[in-house]
Amino acid sequence: MSFHLCAGTGPGLLLRLFLVFATVSVVVDGMNLWPMPKSVNYGSQTLYLSKDFKLRTEGSNYADGLGILQDGFSRMVDIVVASRAIGPNVTNSHVLAGIAVEISSSDDSLNFGIDESYKLFIPSTGYPLFGRIEAKTVYGALHGFQTFSQLCHFNFTTRNIELHLAPWIIDDQPRFLYRGLLIDTARHYQTLTVMKNVIDAMAYTKLNVLHWHIVDTQSFPLEIPSYPKLWNGAYSYSERYTMAEAAEIVLYAQKRGINVLAEIDVPGHAFSWGTGYPSLWPSSDCQQPLDVSNEFTFKVIDGILSDFSKVFKFKFVHLGGDEVDTRCWMTTPHVKKWLDKHGMNESKAYEYFVLRAQNIALSHGYEIVNWEETFNNFGNMLSPKTVVHNWLDVGVAPRVVAAGLRCIVSDQNNWYLDHLSTTWQQFYMNEPLTNITNHEHQKLVIGGEVCMWGETVDGSDIEQTIWPRAAAAAERLWTPFDKLAREPRQVTSRLAHFRCLLNQRGVAAGPITGGGRAAPEEPGSCYKQ
Amino acid sequence: MSFHLCAGTGPGLLLRLFLVFATVSVVVDGMNLWPMPKSVNYGSQTLYLSKDFKLRTEGSNYADGLGILQDGFSRMVDIVVASRAIGPNVTNSHVLAGIAVEISSSDDSLNFGIDESYKLFIPSTGYPLFGRIEAKTVYGALHGFQTFSQLCHFNFTTRNIELHLAPWIIDDQPRFLYRGLLIDTARHYQTLTVMKNVIDAMAYTKLNVLHWHIVDTQSFPLEIPSYPKLWNGAYSYSERYTMAEAAEIVLYAQKRGINVLAEIDVPGHAFSWGTGYPSLWPSSDCQQPLDVSNEFTFKVIDGILSDFSKVFKFKFVHLGGDEVDTRCWMTTPHVKKWLDKHGMNESKAYEYFVLRAQNIALSHGYEIVNWEETFNNFGNMLSPKTVVHNWLDVGVAPRVVAAGLRCIVSDQNNWYLDHLSTTWQQFYMNEPLTNITNHEHQKLVIGGEVCMWGETVDGSDIEQTIWPRAAAAAERLWTPFDKLAREPRQVTSRLAHFRCLLNQRGVAAGPITGGGRAAPEEPGSCYKQ
Repeated sequence: MSFHLCAGTGPGLLLRLFLVFATVSVVVDGMNLWPMPKSVNYGSQTLYLSKDFKLRTEGSNYADGLGILQDGFSRMVDIVVASRAIGPNVTNSHVLAGIAVEISSSDDSLNFGIDESYKLFIPSTGYPLFGRIEAKTVYGALHGFQTFSQLCHFNFTTRNIELHLAPWIIDDQPRFLYRGLLIDTARHYQTLTVMKNVIDAMAYTKLNVLHWHIVDTQSFPLEIPSYPKLWNGAYSYSERYTMAEAAEIVLYAQKRGINVLAEIDVPGHAFSWGTGYPSLWPSSDCQQPLDVSNEFTFKVIDGILSDFSKVFKFKFVHLGGDEVDTRCWMTTPHVKKWLDKHGMNESKAYEYFVLRAQNIALSHGYEIVNWEETFNNFGNMLSPKTVVHNWLDVGVAPRVVAAGLRCIVSDQNNWYLDHLSTTWQQFYMNEPLTNITNHEHQKLVIGGEVCMWGETVDGSDIEQTIWPRAAAAAERLWTPFDKLAREPRQVTSRLAHFRCLLNQRGVAAGPITGGGRAAPEEPGSCYKQ
Repeated sequence: MSFHLCAGTGPGLLLRLFLVFATVSVVVDGMNLWPMPKSVNYGSQTLYLSKDFKLRTEGSNYADGLGILQDGFSRMVDIVVASRAIGPNVTNSHVLAGIAVEISSSDDSLNFGIDESYKLFIPSTGYPLFGRIEAKTVYGALHGFQTFSQLCHFNFTTRNIELHLAPWIIDDQPRFLYRGLLIDTARHYQTLTVMKNVIDAMAYTKLNVLHWHIVDTQSFPLEIPSYPKLWNGAYSYSERYTMAEAAEIVLYAQKRGINVLAEIDVPGHAFSWGTGYPSLWPSSDCQQPLDVSNEFTFKVIDGILSDFSKVFKFKFVHLGGDEVDTRCWMTTPHVKKWLDKHGMNESKAYEYFVLRAQNIALSHGYEIVNWEETFNNFGNMLSPKTVVHNWLDVGVAPRVVAAGLRCIVSDQNNWYLDHLSTTWQQFYMNEPLTNITNHEHQKLVIGGEVCMWGETVDGSDIEQTIWPRAAAAAERLWTPFDKLAREPRQVTSRLAHFRCLLNQRGVAAGPITGGGRAAPEEPGSCYKQ
């Protein structure tokens, strides 16, 4: 098979398909796709999925050495079946035999800015009948699988998986290149199983960056081979990750089109580092921020980022930099002496620390993300390779991009998942380009991120605190602005449907009638709660 | 291999093992097994699990036609690995190469009263070194796998799975034959994925009966082939189970040693039946209890139980019978007329209904479970094949067994999981034989059951509402009375460990510091919350 829509059809088929579609109204209301694609056209024919649903890749330039496409296809079939007891195979002319995927790039490297677009065609006639996905990269094709999975329904009468309203032509690509979710494994350790479940659900919502806030004041769960006592700061013997396991998480995420942004949050939020290396603490009375006066501090940061660079291949590393209370530097004699010697006050020392950490990251080939306090305090000194991560103030993003730096939006009033009272409606309506009208400035907002800080989430409640609210933000980040609902109530039933779909797939997404992890208040249908 | 502990060892090994054990103190404190086995002996040798860990079945009389043993072994290896990134294989004399299983019964039928005992031996010397499980039935062997899985730990230094304190001799069997968990799919539909996850976790805790409260007033999600309009009472098109899916759940449970007790709750709790067949309602003003005066009512019950008997092969069916408010029978003219004609008052009609339903169940080969109101109102009329399900009053069990009937204990003040404020300590300390001293009477208490009523649990919160509190009850039901803790604090750290193990296995068990589905209150280690 070359460029044809399905085997056995002539070269005129695409043209014929378009003629068919010309008579079909472009109505997306009533479609339960989430997030809504850029362009959707459909017809009125019901198809039946073959029990022997096939992947075809003839004509593709992509060799699939890592099995990314084949595994993605198998997972897609699994979630379409969703444990349903499927009946005997249908034999009629409307059986969809499989999907043919044509990928034009042979490259399977995943990073910021890769092409994630895809086109999905489901014809209504032909034999054998094959759907078709065209994509530049395998990661675009994976998005196509996700969309396809949402077109399929179990029919309780025929006991088959059906696909309604064929033919379909869907043309899709993300609005923002960076669509993130933060997980915090320092306030509570999250098991590898939980991490993988979160990644699976991210793929369902077309999010593409797992921001792994690995360590913080409370614990240091990750092995750092260069400084092997660092994970002495873990909560317990078993609440740890080996670097091999971090690599496994990165590969697991990559196979689902998701990048991992690793973070060390310096110089504050780093008390746990001193458990293994107490000299990182300025003194027993001043255990954070890290000791700015000690060369060993920067050696350790260099060792960590050197180890990171072998495993975390994303273009960016996150260096934190938020909520730095430098007062105790001034009351620690050897630090105060060092500051005086170098003519620095507290704020200059904070700037010195952040910029030196940035330079270390740059030396390992990373570009940098820093929380907004670094910009707010010394924005004109930051490396031009910095992305400023907005969290405090809705007004900071316009200032960041006006200054020529890139920005990620995580406004805490709308996109912090640990704020349990924040509703999905707020998550949906939070617009990253608010008050940014200049087109060149808009391009500097690379995307947004919802943040699941870990103070009160462990393995028991993380999923229902994240979902479905994170999915509401995911549509904001994926769908073209002019296709987004102007009022959240326009998408309520579609989001309710998607949350029930997540439940079917084993994701513990909560009712949409509450805030974060709200229990259902009374008996009722999933679709109405 | 015949009866020897492992291949290549002489017949004197068992004797030698026992000589070794004679010098080892029988201390179970510090062992984190849950539920605690009947008898545990151990030594001081660390073993390393082979990456190519093998199942051997030479000498077993069990053919494993359904793959119950092989699949159980594979699942056990999966949960032992628990997503850990295992290092290269160890090669030394303390590598445990696998487990040899000897099952004396060829029968894989699962039902009430089968032998669930097992013996687990882990030697510390020999080559190749094999653990050994001896069991009467494959289901005993599955319990042995569960216990074995809890002996294994990931070593963060060697990157291997280790088993400490070999040699082990564990001799184990359940205290009660019936160890149940109720799931209610009428107040909220639970997806097949959720049902399977609950069954998996039941196997981890050695519970053996899933009491499926399938239908109730709010919805009728199950297909009944004999009366195909009944599931018109489902919440929605997709919140339903085909009978093929029910059979799949039964098989899934069986492969994990878990029976499924199906319930229809008659004559009350049955409003939803009338959606498809309105004549089951006495009138539009009286929509429950079911119409006692209508022969069609009993035809439908007969049809349901006939369909049940093809799929639900457990010895018992649950016929409900609780909370029956018969007042509107008296105000419905045709029912009142029928009652008068047959010389019945309300309470006699309730008795008539329950006994007739019992007879229908008996005709399909079932014994019966009924909620305690049936016993409280007309206990001396119940079939001797009745098991009375206590829920209201802690005092009813002694009266039931004194009357010569069997009893299941689910005291709502201690074993109702929807009571969120009930602590794991209450679940642990609830003793089914309270105030039952006569040995013959004690034998009539076949076990107990924790109940997860579904008013406020859906796919988002069911797991953390069940676990770990149900596990606390599971030890009460499994472990010999004289091995149970007299004070809950004696098992706090062991239960905390087990809850963290559940999290590692992907079960969203909540902190033990709260009641049902309590979120962790602050950052901290899983083992301390």
